[in-house]
Amino acid sequence: MTDKPLILITNDDGITAPGIRALVEAVKDLGDIVVVAPDSPQSAMGHAVTISKPLRLVRTNLYGDIPSYQCSGTPADCVKLAVDKVLHRKPDLLLSGINHGSNSSINILYSGTMSAAMEGAIEGITAAGFSLCDFSIDADFTLAGKIARSVAQNMLANGLPKGVLLNVNIPKLTEETFKGTKVCRQALAKWEEEFDERQDPNGKNYYWLTGKFVNFDKGNDTDEWALANGYASIVPVQFDLTAHNAIGLINQWNIEHENKH
Amino acid sequence: MTDKPLILITNDDGITAPGIRALVEAVKDLGDIVVVAPDSPQSAMGHAVTISKPLRLVRTNLYGDIPSYQCSGTPADCVKLAVDKVLHRKPDLLLSGINHGSNSSINILYSGTMSAAMEGAIEGITAAGFSLCDFSIDADFTLAGKIARSVAQNMLANGLPKGVLLNVNIPKLTEETFKGTKVCRQALAKWEEEFDERQDPNGKNYYWLTGKFVNFDKGNDTDEWALANGYASIVPVQFDLTAHNAIGLINQWNIEHENKH
Repeated sequence: MTDKPLILITNDDGITAPGIRALVEAVKDLGDIVVVAPDSPQSAMGHAVTISKPLRLVRTNLYGDIPSYQCSGTPADCVKLAVDKVLHRKPDLLLSGINHGSNSSINILYSGTMSAAMEGAIEGITAAGFSLCDFSIDADFTLAGKIARSVAQNMLANGLPKGVLLNVNIPKLTEETFKGTKVCRQALAKWEEEFDERQDPNGKNYYWLTGKFVNFDKGNDTDEWALANGYASIVPVQFDLTAHNAIGLINQWNIEHENKH
Repeated sequence: MTDKPLILITNDDGITAPGIRALVEAVKDLGDIVVVAPDSPQSAMGHAVTISKPLRLVRTNLYGDIPSYQCSGTPADCVKLAVDKVLHRKPDLLLSGINHGSNSSINILYSGTMSAAMEGAIEGITAAGFSLCDFSIDADFTLAGKIARSVAQNMLANGLPKGVLLNVNIPKLTEETFKGTKVCRQALAKWEEEFDERQDPNGKNYYWLTGKFVNFDKGNDTDEWALANGYASIVPVQFDLTAHNAIGLINQWNIEHENKH
């Protein structure tokens, strides 16, 4: 035990992904690091947790002196299992990523990277997810690592309001062309699905999910705007999903109950 | 084709669950019903979508004259696939459930039932998820069905604000003891994990996720309060996760960029 902050690092691309190694390298001198990450890619897992089968947790030596464990579950499982069975206490900081590919806008809902950060925030841990807008296995994480480090330093120094976490996305730029960070709101966008319909050798149909990202939101205060204009986006995120403004409206509905008292 | 509203019904307990049948029975005269639901239980799947394997979609005869399809994917997959490959247009209404077990408070984040409704809302469909606070296969869905029907009628008559869906939870009560519905906010609560650690026959550890639901929120305007006091809860929900109130605060941080322009 040291008096340095305890920093839990996880991701959704799996413990062997270059992005999580870049994150560990970027922040390893900021505290005592422990890595607990999925043993295989868990992209698009949303906030899934594993209740119908047991989880495995195996220590690895992938990070030298830094304790690291691979888990058979989802990113949210990793956070839960890390707190309960590895750390035996809440870490001071939870960092998730660096994801290979954007988690801006509506992608946050599908993102395993962000579900891990959100699980941390639910547990009361200061948490953020980091994503680089570059899917390549050979992506350059230099800029993303520096931003993650600076954001982590600010998180340690300032904390975050209760129930708030951060969704940080970094554009695919060099340090020379990068313009800086912007605190943003989540852009209103969606995926327009087109399933690729194929036939198997038995003549039965199957479907691959494909789609096109469509941004309906022209605001220059959004994460999509920031990323398209050379900035990294920092969106403060909450897990209270209540649409508070709609409560009054729904209260005007006439919902009938037979035998109402 | 009729001029009746087109109503898509899905769930996360799977197409054979009693709860989805109760929902179909409760609303079947309100429009043209199509059922597209998972072929196996998908509880706790959160907003997962299936990108690493193809999906299967098979027509069933479980609902007689009502077209029904079972899908190998998650609840969110079911909605996407239904819109693109079954309905070939957006339905007028998407109803998800009736879930066997509560999806109140923080459970919304883990819930496949609610992820299906949220996917609908993202697609611009008027959507709601319904859950009965009773896990039993023999649960009585009479009250829940009546509430779902009344809520669906109001949704068809009034629509919902853009980007808003409904999370409806029904207590395990009879119509005689039920007090009515309340429009609520999501209670601030969490699951306190305790993993059940066991050893397999080879002496290796494995872990079952268990936990205790803890409600930190004593407000009488929450879904947890409503359910504990004899009411059904109706929470309007949004998929803009931005913590707008925190933007100003994070803007005061000093995030350094080397080579900043």
